[in-house]
Amino acid sequence: MGKVAVNTPKGFRDFLGEDARLRQNLIGKFVTSFERFGFEPLLTPALEYAEILKGKYGEEEKLIYEFEDRGGRQVALRYDQTVPLARIVAQYPNLTKPYKRYQIQPVWRAENPQKGRYREFLQVDIDTAGSDSLLADSEIIACIISTLEEIGFSSFTVKINDREIFSGIPNSAISAIDKLDKIGEEGVIALLKNQSFSEFQAKDLLKKVTESVPTERVNNLFEILTNMGVSNSRYAFDPSLARGLDYYTGLIFEVEIEGYTSGSVGGGGRYDRLVGTFSESNVPAVGFSFGFDRIIEALKEQNSNSLAVNGSQVLVTIFNEDLLKTSLETVSFLRNNGLNTELYLDPKAKLDKQLKYADNKKIPFVLIIGPNEKEKELVNIKDLKNAKQEQIKLKDVISFIDAKSSL
Amino acid sequence: MGKVAVNTPKGFRDFLGEDARLRQNLIGKFVTSFERFGFEPLLTPALEYAEILKGKYGEEEKLIYEFEDRGGRQVALRYDQTVPLARIVAQYPNLTKPYKRYQIQPVWRAENPQKGRYREFLQVDIDTAGSDSLLADSEIIACIISTLEEIGFSSFTVKINDREIFSGIPNSAISAIDKLDKIGEEGVIALLKNQSFSEFQAKDLLKKVTESVPTERVNNLFEILTNMGVSNSRYAFDPSLARGLDYYTGLIFEVEIEGYTSGSVGGGGRYDRLVGTFSESNVPAVGFSFGFDRIIEALKEQNSNSLAVNGSQVLVTIFNEDLLKTSLETVSFLRNNGLNTELYLDPKAKLDKQLKYADNKKIPFVLIIGPNEKEKELVNIKDLKNAKQEQIKLKDVISFIDAKSSL
Repeated sequence: MGKVAVNTPKGFRDFLGEDARLRQNLIGKFVTSFERFGFEPLLTPALEYAEILKGKYGEEEKLIYEFEDRGGRQVALRYDQTVPLARIVAQYPNLTKPYKRYQIQPVWRAENPQKGRYREFLQVDIDTAGSDSLLADSEIIACIISTLEEIGFSSFTVKINDREIFSGIPNSAISAIDKLDKIGEEGVIALLKNQSFSEFQAKDLLKKVTESVPTERVNNLFEILTNMGVSNSRYAFDPSLARGLDYYTGLIFEVEIEGYTSGSVGGGGRYDRLVGTFSESNVPAVGFSFGFDRIIEALKEQNSNSLAVNGSQVLVTIFNEDLLKTSLETVSFLRNNGLNTELYLDPKAKLDKQLKYADNKKIPFVLIIGPNEKEKELVNIKDLKNAKQEQIKLKDVISFIDAKSSL
Repeated sequence: MGKVAVNTPKGFRDFLGEDARLRQNLIGKFVTSFERFGFEPLLTPALEYAEILKGKYGEEEKLIYEFEDRGGRQVALRYDQTVPLARIVAQYPNLTKPYKRYQIQPVWRAENPQKGRYREFLQVDIDTAGSDSLLADSEIIACIISTLEEIGFSSFTVKINDREIFSGIPNSAISAIDKLDKIGEEGVIALLKNQSFSEFQAKDLLKKVTESVPTERVNNLFEILTNMGVSNSRYAFDPSLARGLDYYTGLIFEVEIEGYTSGSVGGGGRYDRLVGTFSESNVPAVGFSFGFDRIIEALKEQNSNSLAVNGSQVLVTIFNEDLLKTSLETVSFLRNNGLNTELYLDPKAKLDKQLKYADNKKIPFVLIIGPNEKEKELVNIKDLKNAKQEQIKLKDVISFIDAKSSL
């Protein structure tokens, strides 16, 4: 083939084996939790007409992957899942409102690739469109908390604020204050001074914001969460939380996982003006986006077992060509009883090579059935963790593996 | 926003609600079955360097979505999952062989959209790369059969042939013979006569092919399948099955579902020359690709319930604002016990409107908790199928719904 660069474009990733399984299992957790809360799935195409996406992302618009298709139309790769949601709400006017949907699909952004930033990444969104009720905001927060618990995180906080806190404060100052967690008070004051605030004004503004008390809306939200039985250790009012104010119109939230220092693992809030973009009327909405890659990273840092990988549990070896039939029958028996089972694919391979294969693939158990075992209707089962081998009945293999695996 | 066309580009689809759930559930069936057979997941990026894809698809190459990225590199959308597999095998030389992977991702082809043909569609592939053993072919076929049974099809046939049957026959004649099922003997003979065969030669060739006996390889395959316990009603030798001969090098297979007339729901075979494209050496391979959209279509035609949709089971209404707390507690109780539960989001809405919402969303049960029920610690549960209402204890709601749903 000549010299073709055999790799992925920068910022794009392959996921093999365990990594792919971990992602798959995590998606399963999200789906279960979102369905529990009455959200329904939505899938939109990778390509939209570019004009649908234009004028929606401000400065970031230059990061859209856009090109002309063979029919001469400008098309663009999905950049987020909120603009497609706005299109859906306009295109399907008979959709029952409030429309509560989740969407878990990749998006593409021509970012400068760097640690933890990719050009293709999975977005995990829940949104309720068509309700201005505080119950909708409350349900989103209860769902976030339940989902993170389901995934296996034990210590995290949903930080909650109300954009009302910032009314009258210029956007640039709000962005500075939003950095309080990262750069501390002195850092924020330095930034504000660069924005033509005096030292006194800067300190006063910061004090005013950080000492803000919860708005009535925040207090009502907390009461609803309490009535829902959500533990108040899971959420907290944070008056310095700002997020992108152009976009949000009410409550805003962000999730912090204890011990995970690479930033928030998700954010959201109420945004009453965006979903109605293509519609005849306004469509109030509230939603949240989970940072899939950061959650994977946080899980790995915490050595969490909650998404343990469940590949093949056993490799059935082939003793020799005469005994192939026995191995085939064994494989079928185990699979029919629900065990993820691999058959070694070469009937002429030495046993050593077959064991090596199981080891390389981290398959925990190996079955060996020689002529003696066959006659006595037994199998040798070898636990590769400790190299111990035992003779048991074929019908006991699954309970044997279950017992060992739950140790 | 002016006049933006609020729809998807031609050949691209949205999937909402039940349709999205059906797809999700079907993917789940595939994953379970593939894992049972020891295949591991693989995810590759939507974009590859265009040069990876070039020269692989012959005439079809013009259907690739290709464009220049902002860095001036030519990139292309995933066109199939076999070329990415070839890249993976070359890029990760330490991958344990045989490498058995499944891949379930969308691909993009700039086809002329028509009934049942889309520009974005899901591919569902299993492949074993790095084994020339007939056991690998056998496992693929056993896995196809088990997967279709798992999905819920009761009558189908895996048609099997060996490309050896066609040795010495020109490709154009093979393509004609491949149409036997669709156009009958006379149709095939007409086609062959257009290819400068005489009537006598055409009849003779067709007879020669259709009366071919299974090759030794096919007989060996059938013996292995029998030893695996695979019912021989599930597969059949079909000497007129041809598929794309340029690509395949040994056994070929295709699946026909009884009663489904829009064509095969999947095809595959052994292809020993493609996966090694980017590698130092040959990589023999065998695989199969399920037609996801056709399987969905066949399931719908057969009114199959095997992938029944599992959205919200119950809507908890809000009797009035004073009783909101009771409804919130009820919702939390049900969710904590694993029931997919929706809360109506407007505490001021009339009960009629709330019931209408459940009806529109096809939520089967509605809970109503008024002041009397609250006092007696009961709930009214209404079955929207027959409009019957009963008073039961909250703790009995889940078993009540389970019992009704399994009727």
